[in-house]
Amino acid sequence: MIKLSVMYPHTPGARFDHDYYRDKHMPLLKSLMGDVCLYYTIDKGLAGGAAGSPPPYVAMCHAFFESLPALQAALGEHGRQIMADIPNYTDLAPVMQFSEVVVEKS
Amino acid sequence: MIKLSVMYPHTPGARFDHDYYRDKHMPLLKSLMGDVCLYYTIDKGLAGGAAGSPPPYVAMCHAFFESLPALQAALGEHGRQIMADIPNYTDLAPVMQFSEVVVEKS
Repeated sequence: MIKLSVMYPHTPGARFDHDYYRDKHMPLLKSLMGDVCLYYTIDKGLAGGAAGSPPPYVAMCHAFFESLPALQAALGEHGRQIMADIPNYTDLAPVMQFSEVVVEKS
Repeated sequence: MIKLSVMYPHTPGARFDHDYYRDKHMPLLKSLMGDVCLYYTIDKGLAGGAAGSPPPYVAMCHAFFESLPALQAALGEHGRQIMADIPNYTDLAPVMQFSEVVVEKS
């Protein structure tokens, strides 16, 4: 299984609409990709590891796919429409990572 | 629900033993914390968002807890022993984040 992580770096003064992200953006991604996106998770950053430090990322999502080719095909087909929605909730540029899921849940 | 993310920045030449991390380190964390750690996930970084780029993180884990006080108590009790195991699998210093789980699975 493959995980796509999209991480929005915490930046003072930047805009991020957590409600829109939860209620509109991620449901848009899921509706476009359908069952190719097995499921997704959303995090809201609270704090970093050092006492009193901000979280490295103000928000993260992790979306799960059967395989890298399946994920790449879905991004190729729908990536433009998904990315066009980003300005509706943030002015941040996300950091992306493709990972192999070593342990899904233990 | 609260998520603790521990992320190991991709660094050329650095050491990271994915087998030890999966088979020894994360089971150690779970055995020490018991049911206070609801479950955890492990990722192995494959690639970044830009074509041909390395993953931002060579590995990540995400561990789930009922509440921030429960997580903080578990870290206070077992954090020293968990961190003492880090040199057994890597010479990297992890980035940590505490997050609120907005969507656990959708």
